[in-house]
Amino acid sequence: MSIAAGHTQPDASTVPAITITDVAPRDGLQNQAVAISTDAKVELIRLLARAGLRSVEATSFVSPKAVPQMADAADVVQRASAACPDLRLSTLVPNLKGLERAHGAGATEIAVVLSATETMNQRNINMGLDAATEVSEQTLIRARELGLRTRAYVAVAFDCPFEGTVDLDTVLRLACRMRDAGAGEIVIADTIGAAAPAAVKTRLSALAQVLDIDTLAVHLHDTRGLGAANAWAALEAGVRRFDASVGGIGGCPFAPGAAGNLATEDLVLMAGQCGLDTGISLDGLLDAVAYAESLLGRPLGGRSSAWLRRQRERQRAAA
Amino acid sequence: MSIAAGHTQPDASTVPAITITDVAPRDGLQNQAVAISTDAKVELIRLLARAGLRSVEATSFVSPKAVPQMADAADVVQRASAACPDLRLSTLVPNLKGLERAHGAGATEIAVVLSATETMNQRNINMGLDAATEVSEQTLIRARELGLRTRAYVAVAFDCPFEGTVDLDTVLRLACRMRDAGAGEIVIADTIGAAAPAAVKTRLSALAQVLDIDTLAVHLHDTRGLGAANAWAALEAGVRRFDASVGGIGGCPFAPGAAGNLATEDLVLMAGQCGLDTGISLDGLLDAVAYAESLLGRPLGGRSSAWLRRQRERQRAAA
Repeated sequence: MSIAAGHTQPDASTVPAITITDVAPRDGLQNQAVAISTDAKVELIRLLARAGLRSVEATSFVSPKAVPQMADAADVVQRASAACPDLRLSTLVPNLKGLERAHGAGATEIAVVLSATETMNQRNINMGLDAATEVSEQTLIRARELGLRTRAYVAVAFDCPFEGTVDLDTVLRLACRMRDAGAGEIVIADTIGAAAPAAVKTRLSALAQVLDIDTLAVHLHDTRGLGAANAWAALEAGVRRFDASVGGIGGCPFAPGAAGNLATEDLVLMAGQCGLDTGISLDGLLDAVAYAESLLGRPLGGRSSAWLRRQRERQRAAA
Repeated sequence: MSIAAGHTQPDASTVPAITITDVAPRDGLQNQAVAISTDAKVELIRLLARAGLRSVEATSFVSPKAVPQMADAADVVQRASAACPDLRLSTLVPNLKGLERAHGAGATEIAVVLSATETMNQRNINMGLDAATEVSEQTLIRARELGLRTRAYVAVAFDCPFEGTVDLDTVLRLACRMRDAGAGEIVIADTIGAAAPAAVKTRLSALAQVLDIDTLAVHLHDTRGLGAANAWAALEAGVRRFDASVGGIGGCPFAPGAAGNLATEDLVLMAGQCGLDTGISLDGLLDAVAYAESLLGRPLGGRSSAWLRRQRERQRAAA
């Protein structure tokens, strides 16, 4: 059974598909008070694959001391790869050491995270912007040598909780350096969810001038309720790759004020109603949300959840 | 004290201002189980004016039998006009009889509501589309003779809960008929909150081809969590007039599936961050939300509410 998105049909005709990377298993779980078992993480990933996700950010090879929730990163990669052989499984790596751990665990895709401000890098990884940029470059270069797919986040690409509005030229420069170091995908992140559509439009349009739009992705948080509006602004700027998190769970432990990610179901609903195929089932996403709720012991869900659930109940009652 | 919208500044330079009509006193209250006193309605309108709203939809001169909550329409108009002499106070009128009541009460602005489908008109006012169109035209013409300002809603202008996707040509035709009958403002309404940004863009752009964009307004509901995204799509299509409802309260009693309106605070936050001045204080809106919560005895607020409240607490703590 699939949730029909009501009667709204786009008035436009053909539009290209979009690709969503669900970051719930990593960005969603890393900051949770409840310890989540490896079994449960793999099951969440399996449910996402079953819903139609083709790309998932599975885990992070950071220090287990810094983020205890990710101490089982190698197990998650191995077991999720076996359970979902067709799924792109990305893993965050902070540096060469993390990369070697990820590679040793059989990871085929890694992501580095570079914040666009001095202070955010200091707080996040205890390193200045220049040093952090070099570490990201070295990691990307080595990952390419190892034959891995690569993503590079440019974090706090709009606003920094410590430095305010981030210089657009810095974002452009860092994005280009990540591309030149071999990043296959550059993920422009509104890490604290402070952006609004005008800035998304301006910044993504500027980035699209210097980078191949097919390699640009956007990572949004829904702190101020503008996640879907920002995603629409990015779509209008030509972006077709998005991070999102099923149930809207997530938030950066080192970024004050960050709330949940843009919910995958909100993005899939909006994209579908706008004629942009995602290949993802809203029903399948609701199943994954329900499972995540059972893990975390609290209600989850994006801005569309109440409506999606009512819609599913109505359809089941009518079936 | 005013809530600073964080550090996000628009990258663009100058942009024109937008006008918001707060419909909470009418669309927000008409469907509530709790009876609201005239005193309370006037106080809510006063709080909206104090927050900087210059236009409010105050009440509705419908049959008190159909909508008991609006039985005090004449008192609301008289007392709110006296309390807020600089505020544009609009009142819904279903027909000539409602118009005479509104005029007798001293109303200076009225709005008619025409649904864009046969079935919705039947369910809403027990009349077919042709008859409903004629009634709206007669009412507008008479209102202009009386020297009143006029608005005309084209309701279910995207999707109808009974007929599905609404024919765009019908919407265009009805909007033009309302203009020709003297409507100073044409309000395109997503009555059930089923629209997505692609349709908002297409439809508003088409309407802007045949109508003066300065006379076009958009009325959105946030049923599927796409209210802000749809508002951004309308802004991008050039629309600068919006309905919104403080706290996101509202919903049509005759339209199954309609949830709250786009929250005024969500629109003001997004517009402000995008460099579009509204002249409205987010702090003042939070005060109005708190008052509406005390009236209705339940939590209210738009998608940005949690963040706005945290932000206000932080600023008060720091002051």
